[in-house]
Amino acid sequence: MDYAKLMEKKSANNLSAGPAIILCEPQLGANIGTAARAMGNFGLEEMRLVDPKNGWPNEHAVKAASGATHIIDPAVVYQTTEEAVADLNFVVATTARRRDMNKQVLKPESLAREMIRRIDAGQKVGILFGREKYGLTNDQVALADAVVMAPVNPAFASLNLAQAVLLIGYEWFKQKSDGSLGRETEQEEASREGLELRDSRPATKEELLGMFGHLERELDAGGFLRPVEKRPAMVRNVRNMLTRAEFTEQEVRTFRGVISSLTRVHERRGE
Amino acid sequence: MDYAKLMEKKSANNLSAGPAIILCEPQLGANIGTAARAMGNFGLEEMRLVDPKNGWPNEHAVKAASGATHIIDPAVVYQTTEEAVADLNFVVATTARRRDMNKQVLKPESLAREMIRRIDAGQKVGILFGREKYGLTNDQVALADAVVMAPVNPAFASLNLAQAVLLIGYEWFKQKSDGSLGRETEQEEASREGLELRDSRPATKEELLGMFGHLERELDAGGFLRPVEKRPAMVRNVRNMLTRAEFTEQEVRTFRGVISSLTRVHERRGE
Repeated sequence: MDYAKLMEKKSANNLSAGPAIILCEPQLGANIGTAARAMGNFGLEEMRLVDPKNGWPNEHAVKAASGATHIIDPAVVYQTTEEAVADLNFVVATTARRRDMNKQVLKPESLAREMIRRIDAGQKVGILFGREKYGLTNDQVALADAVVMAPVNPAFASLNLAQAVLLIGYEWFKQKSDGSLGRETEQEEASREGLELRDSRPATKEELLGMFGHLERELDAGGFLRPVEKRPAMVRNVRNMLTRAEFTEQEVRTFRGVISSLTRVHERRGE
Repeated sequence: MDYAKLMEKKSANNLSAGPAIILCEPQLGANIGTAARAMGNFGLEEMRLVDPKNGWPNEHAVKAASGATHIIDPAVVYQTTEEAVADLNFVVATTARRRDMNKQVLKPESLAREMIRRIDAGQKVGILFGREKYGLTNDQVALADAVVMAPVNPAFASLNLAQAVLLIGYEWFKQKSDGSLGRETEQEEASREGLELRDSRPATKEELLGMFGHLERELDAGGFLRPVEKRPAMVRNVRNMLTRAEFTEQEVRTFRGVISSLTRVHERRGE
């Protein structure tokens, strides 16, 4: 472990060295505080809160943070999960159970590698944690590029919020501070770098959500997203399958061009 | 992960499949409870308590255990740490700081490997956790065969009791349920296998090319793939970005539905 080197690199890069931890609709201030403490234990600093149920700032959070005020104080509150991920390039949803979504499922240790690789490449990464009792909604999971599940005893699988944050932070810190990361995955990295993304940076979630909004408005107009009770699941399916492609900013514009072109087809045919 | 196989092996061996978790002089019942919950998350069952400061049984412990009564109820109380480790073959002390003792220092993952090896060989293993504020005394550490230290942010190193138990349990369960000790490609395999494709098989190239043909016919009709000398590159770009999503057979059909719907938009608007 070489923490000093890590911190040096972090400030040299002028980048947050870790992912944003995004707590969606947390219910208890104390859980926000213990989550902040767990972040501090593993050098994570950026906390985002989506619609915390007991308001913000919250004195119970400060107390439970056991001194992690450098994390609690600058935490930013968002009204929706969409807003909280808008500037990010890669978003991962934590979940305790399998979901019927076609998304890559990572273990915490593979996630740590993936995050380090992306952050080193200049991407902004965030991890979504759901509310204490229910976890993330399917719509929140659909915003993510991948899902992370920790291996737990299936007969007793409920981790509390701070513990879920702790495991993610632990694996991240372990691999980051090992410094051994690059060696074994060098080849793998090289082959991933082969992916042609040279024309453009990865799309932000805001750009992607704008594209989805465009597509869904046209699909509504075309009567595709019916009956209405099936609309949420259909929207999730389409978002999931296109999210997996990890469009660049240029590709988002291309795809929006495709949508516009397709909706013009019959106008032109009529000319 | 193959939990069923793990449990089968456990009962076949007629041994506790995991180490005993020994809490030395814990101060708060609530911490004993959350530690029990963390044990349950990772299939650890044997809790030993040395001189719990607020007596035993303790209703705060039961409440904080969130249902882990199968761990709390049979927990055994000892008056001294010596008595608590008397029947064990291999004892490990958790500590947050280096001690001036000539003992092997393990990381949680090496400890997990060591424990699995010893328990498989019929040994009884236990892990000592100190009281919340001060950790283990030097005398307690001296009872141990080895010391385990988790890699944490040295500037914010204090883990609470349940979180320390959680990390040990997590590494143990991860390696035990992997069945993969030391196979370096395990992670990569797991993450590749991780894509959930439950509704459908991966699309064949024939299906994918059929979808591309459908899309490109409509894009030609909409005038998108112009000028003609740029058409091949544009087609490649669109194919590349959609190929990356690795559609299933069902998703290919969904996407063809999307194309058809979009091209019908203006017909319907005109109705």
